[in-house]
Amino acid sequence: MSLWEQCFSQASLSLQPSPIREILHVIRQPGMISFAGGMPDPAIFPVEEFYACSEILQREGRDVLQYGTTEGYPPLKEFLASWLAPRLGRTPKMEELLITTGSTQVVDLLNWATVDKGDAVIVEDPTFLGSTLNMHNHGAHFLPVGCDEKGMLVEELPGLIEKARKEGRKVRYIYCIVNFHNPLGCTLSLERRKRLMEISEQYKIPVLEDDPYGYVRFDGEHLPSLFSMDKNEGTLYAGSFSKILAPGTRIAWCVGPADIIRKMAVFKQGTDVCSSVVTQALIYEYCQRGYLDSFLPKIIDHYRKKRDTMEEAFQKYLPREKVSYVTPEGGFFYWLSTPEIAADALFDRAIEKKVAFVKGRPFYALGDGGDHSFRMCYTFASPEQIEEGCSRLGKAMTELL
Amino acid sequence: MSLWEQCFSQASLSLQPSPIREILHVIRQPGMISFAGGMPDPAIFPVEEFYACSEILQREGRDVLQYGTTEGYPPLKEFLASWLAPRLGRTPKMEELLITTGSTQVVDLLNWATVDKGDAVIVEDPTFLGSTLNMHNHGAHFLPVGCDEKGMLVEELPGLIEKARKEGRKVRYIYCIVNFHNPLGCTLSLERRKRLMEISEQYKIPVLEDDPYGYVRFDGEHLPSLFSMDKNEGTLYAGSFSKILAPGTRIAWCVGPADIIRKMAVFKQGTDVCSSVVTQALIYEYCQRGYLDSFLPKIIDHYRKKRDTMEEAFQKYLPREKVSYVTPEGGFFYWLSTPEIAADALFDRAIEKKVAFVKGRPFYALGDGGDHSFRMCYTFASPEQIEEGCSRLGKAMTELL
Repeated sequence: MSLWEQCFSQASLSLQPSPIREILHVIRQPGMISFAGGMPDPAIFPVEEFYACSEILQREGRDVLQYGTTEGYPPLKEFLASWLAPRLGRTPKMEELLITTGSTQVVDLLNWATVDKGDAVIVEDPTFLGSTLNMHNHGAHFLPVGCDEKGMLVEELPGLIEKARKEGRKVRYIYCIVNFHNPLGCTLSLERRKRLMEISEQYKIPVLEDDPYGYVRFDGEHLPSLFSMDKNEGTLYAGSFSKILAPGTRIAWCVGPADIIRKMAVFKQGTDVCSSVVTQALIYEYCQRGYLDSFLPKIIDHYRKKRDTMEEAFQKYLPREKVSYVTPEGGFFYWLSTPEIAADALFDRAIEKKVAFVKGRPFYALGDGGDHSFRMCYTFASPEQIEEGCSRLGKAMTELL
Repeated sequence: MSLWEQCFSQASLSLQPSPIREILHVIRQPGMISFAGGMPDPAIFPVEEFYACSEILQREGRDVLQYGTTEGYPPLKEFLASWLAPRLGRTPKMEELLITTGSTQVVDLLNWATVDKGDAVIVEDPTFLGSTLNMHNHGAHFLPVGCDEKGMLVEELPGLIEKARKEGRKVRYIYCIVNFHNPLGCTLSLERRKRLMEISEQYKIPVLEDDPYGYVRFDGEHLPSLFSMDKNEGTLYAGSFSKILAPGTRIAWCVGPADIIRKMAVFKQGTDVCSSVVTQALIYEYCQRGYLDSFLPKIIDHYRKKRDTMEEAFQKYLPREKVSYVTPEGGFFYWLSTPEIAADALFDRAIEKKVAFVKGRPFYALGDGGDHSFRMCYTFASPEQIEEGCSRLGKAMTELL
């Protein structure tokens, strides 16, 4: 035991390890086919184009090797402001835009700015566990809201908020993954978007609109963002280059009212000063050369095919009436429900057969659900792996029925 | 007022803005000579060499554009482990090493792992305000220890620790900038290093050895690191590429017992998942090609000359018996004390004459000192600016005497 171990904080003692980290040793076994991590396909990374952009490291080297402003590399911010305008409904001002080190940092900085220990945050049930891990560390009290194929059951919000307020809780914000939800794959319907913004206005509770997958839509039309529907400066919109370019850059952004952005920037200065100027410049060059716009259709097409491959494999290999899912219109994930098969047992059996997924439970903020459901990522594996992996999964399921 | 503003947390309401941010508008005035920010000289950045290293983005693109492991890019970790060995007294194991997004993140992750609200942290008085900003956000209670030209007055520690413990405080760790202190410029003597490690052992209080400037030594011999003298697994050693390569990369590291590193890695996963793999790979390539070792002597030589230029300008332009300082043997800063001139008045007068520095007060964790002292950075300005800036400063001083 080191001297440090006796100095562990409460947050440290109650720290929840990520389920992905916990199964890394399993995922890495030889021959394992993994649908666990939510990773892009490296085969589609624009390696040559991104490499070509390194010319900016020569051209602007004395600038980009220096400390940058905490708010972000100005040329990238300017590019983003106009690129995001159609989705946001207007061009954001520079002081409404903050560049972050991945979009997990958006959640971290927002929690710094708004969450005192015991304050409530409304989250979808289930939701992205990286976000709830951070909220948990900040001492947030979770108010989970159920979801169906149209996303968050927003009609449950008023009751939930009133109950929490009666109990003396401050309800700080509503966290919503609007498009191609992680892990559910669903998209919040237009009607519910409108209702959510009404509730936000009525109860004066702002919304974190987390949208890492929003630009990766395979079918149908984009729905208006909450930000674009917001009349009360109550929405913080978060996006990322992780899914539309490459996660190894660790560059994301958020857009919101200048007062919250300003607070988050001061907390950012106290956590990592600024995000890598080197990668911000590389990404700016990539965007400015038009690669972002020309590559996006290729990424979308590539992942649409993978989604289709997975769904065909489901139909071919999984026991039909024993499993249900909603076809995602974009994004990275299928969420499978198997009322007659426990996810724990299925996971163990699947691992024996060398196929991995993430069990449902850790996506539930209170850890009280998901015992008969699990998440399958279709973007990372090859089409052959998807076919073979689903075949193995089907056998594992059949054995447990 | 946005909906967010009424949701501000306590940490947000008591947030201390950085003094550098506060004077940015002043520093950016045309004709201003700034000794304020602690920035490297862009003229010395190895732009061509760093650019040449972007070849790794082509060679290893499918790997480095993907999510990386939270603990850091393995090839960079392996390089660092052997590069750091002479300073650490041994080659650290991979599980003792964590790559971070700047060394401010080391402080943030360590505070997550060890500091509950109200827990005490021992800091030098004055000390680096980026670190105390983060500690403040985590709710740390500061126990400041005075310094002289040999660094922290370690003999004061036992009394301080005993008093705090009597008051029921948990004393979590001792924060010490061992070499070429920011803002003091001083270096902890060998004798005090030994005594500090004895006290750490006796009171079972671990030490964060922050060493961003340690490799930038102009004169004399390197002193052994606390880490190398530690027999109790009680030291976390933090270093950074910001001062020896380029801060725009935002890559730093820490080395310590596996238990604390493991905790910090889980918190890192909840804050930014991993540091930019792109910049980690670029830095690895830079190091592996031998550029780090071949460039370091050039950087040291360059900054030694600037230090000498500044000290000569002090002697030439400042009122001799009214100002005192210790010549730094390395690093970035002079700390000037002017018992007869208030730093506030001097700052205002200096700004009128178009020369800027950072006033002493914000470096004091409790904000209770530094009224007659200030920090001067000599690395960023050109020799001509140093000469002219010190001349202006001398005039400002004389006018106030």
